[in-house]
Amino acid sequence: MNIKEYYIKQISRTNKKNYENYVVCRILNKLDDISVKFVTQQPVIIKNADADRKALTDLYFPQIDLHIEIDEPHHKKQAEDDIRRDADIVSTTKHDIKRIDVSESLESIHQNINQILGEIKQRIQKKKEVGQFAPWDINSEFDPQFYIKKGYIDFEDKVAFRLEVDACRCFGLNYRGYQRAIAHHPIEKDKDIWFPKLYKNDDWDNSLSGDGITITEKKMSGSHNFLKNNKNYIVFARVADSLSMVLYRFKGVFKLDVEESNKQKAAIYKRIGTRVKTYSNQ
Amino acid sequence: MNIKEYYIKQISRTNKKNYENYVVCRILNKLDDISVKFVTQQPVIIKNADADRKALTDLYFPQIDLHIEIDEPHHKKQAEDDIRRDADIVSTTKHDIKRIDVSESLESIHQNINQILGEIKQRIQKKKEVGQFAPWDINSEFDPQFYIKKGYIDFEDKVAFRLEVDACRCFGLNYRGYQRAIAHHPIEKDKDIWFPKLYKNDDWDNSLSGDGITITEKKMSGSHNFLKNNKNYIVFARVADSLSMVLYRFKGVFKLDVEESNKQKAAIYKRIGTRVKTYSNQ
Repeated sequence: MNIKEYYIKQISRTNKKNYENYVVCRILNKLDDISVKFVTQQPVIIKNADADRKALTDLYFPQIDLHIEIDEPHHKKQAEDDIRRDADIVSTTKHDIKRIDVSESLESIHQNINQILGEIKQRIQKKKEVGQFAPWDINSEFDPQFYIKKGYIDFEDKVAFRLEVDACRCFGLNYRGYQRAIAHHPIEKDKDIWFPKLYKNDDWDNSLSGDGITITEKKMSGSHNFLKNNKNYIVFARVADSLSMVLYRFKGVFKLDVEESNKQKAAIYKRIGTRVKTYSNQ
Repeated sequence: MNIKEYYIKQISRTNKKNYENYVVCRILNKLDDISVKFVTQQPVIIKNADADRKALTDLYFPQIDLHIEIDEPHHKKQAEDDIRRDADIVSTTKHDIKRIDVSESLESIHQNINQILGEIKQRIQKKKEVGQFAPWDINSEFDPQFYIKKGYIDFEDKVAFRLEVDACRCFGLNYRGYQRAIAHHPIEKDKDIWFPKLYKNDDWDNSLSGDGITITEKKMSGSHNFLKNNKNYIVFARVADSLSMVLYRFKGVFKLDVEESNKQKAAIYKRIGTRVKTYSNQ
C-alpha cells in the first residue's frame, strides 16, 4: 500500500459521519506533514477507576501519543462489542485525548482545530529536540533492517511487523517463511520469540491486561505444566491493524509467573522488560 | 441553514467517492476562506460543437467562474439522466474547468491542488482589485435589501431568491406571500416579473437553451396566442439548488419573438437584457 492509498483508506472510514469526516480532513490537511502517522478509529483501552473500557478514538497520532475525539451529534459511538477481538489495541494510560465539540459554530470548530494543531506541532518539535521523533515512512515502517541497524526494539517505539519472518530477522534468524507460535532465539539461548494470539481463539482463551503487563493464557481443554518453564518470551502479538491487515506487534519481554499461574489455574506471564537487543545475520 | 451546516452538507455529497472527498476537503481547508462560496456536484451545461451536454462538476466556485473536476478511478461519472430536471444549471461557456488526476501520487495531487489554490486566490485578488468581488455571506445571500441598495440586479452577479416575494420586493412590491407565475411591475409598466418552471412540468414543456438566451414554452394541450404579447419579462426561473431547496434564479429580461413562435408553434422568448433596475417600496 502506498501513502496515497493509506490516506484515502483511513479517511474513508469517517465517511458515514459527516462532521468527523470534515474535522479529520481539516486536521490532516492543515497539518500537511506526511512524516506524521495517523490512524482513524483507533481501538484503545481507557483505564477507569473500576474497570478498563475498550473504545475507538477518532484520530490517533502514534508518534506523539495524542488522540482526538470528535463529538458528533446523532451518531452513537461505536460500542465496545464492535471492536474486533484481534484489534491492535493501544493503552491510553500515558496518552492524551483532545475533544472537538462539533455542536459549536464553524468558527469555534476551526479555532479548536487550530489549538490542537498547535499542540500537535509542539509535541513533534519537543520530540525532535531530544532526537526522539522518528519520521513516518510507510515504505520502511515494517522493515526489520531499520531495527537491526538501530540495535534494539523498544516498546515505546510502537514496533510491529507484517510477517513473523521479519520479527525473526531482527534476532539473526533468516527464515524464508515461518508460521509457528514459537521461534528459538539463536544467540540469547534463554529467550524465545513468541507470536501469541492474545484473544480468544480456537484452542486458547488468551488476553493481555489493559496496562500491557500481564498475559493470561488458558487452554480450552487439558492443562499446562507451569513449573518447568523458565524461558523469557519476546512477545510479538498477532493483531489486525486499522485496515484489517495482520500485524505482529512488539509487547515486551514476558516471563511465566509460576506461583500466580498455579493460583489462577492459567499461565500468567508478567512483563519483565520493554527493550530487546537486535542482531544481524552473519 | 448556517454556514457550518452548509459546509457539512455540501461535503457530505462527496462521501461515497473517497478521492473526491479528500480533494474537496483539502481544497476548502487549504483555501480556508468562508467569504468564498462553493458548491459540490454543480449541474452544468457544457457547450459542445454538436450538442450541449449536461454534466456535474465536482467543485464550483461561482464568484470566480471556476470548476474543478476530480477524475476518480472506479467511479463512473453521474449520468446526464441523474440530474434533476429542475436543477439550478449553469452554463460553463465563460467558465474554466480545472482537472485533478487522482491516479497520480499523493505528492502530485497535492502539487496540483496547490496550483489550483494559486489560481483561485489570483482570481479573487483580480476581482477585488476592480471592486467586483462580493464576499459570500450565507445570511444575506438571498436578501432583497442588498439588491435594492445596490440599485440593480445583474445576471453576472448570479442573483437568486428563496421566495417569489423576495424577488417582487426588489421592484417595490411588498407582498406578504406570492405564488403566481406572473407579477406586474408597479413602476415600469411594460414589464412583468415572471417565475417560470423552465423544464417539463404538469402543464408545460418548457426549456432554457444552454447559452441562456432562449426560452421555449410549449403548452401540453391547447394553443397560445402569440401576437398580442409585447411585454418584457424579468425572469426568475424556479430551480432546485444544490441542497434541493427551491430557488428563484434571475435569468435576464426576455421578450416574445412572435415570428419565431409562429414558426415553431411554441412561445419563443429571446433575452433582451441582463440587468434590471431595483426599487425600494416607498
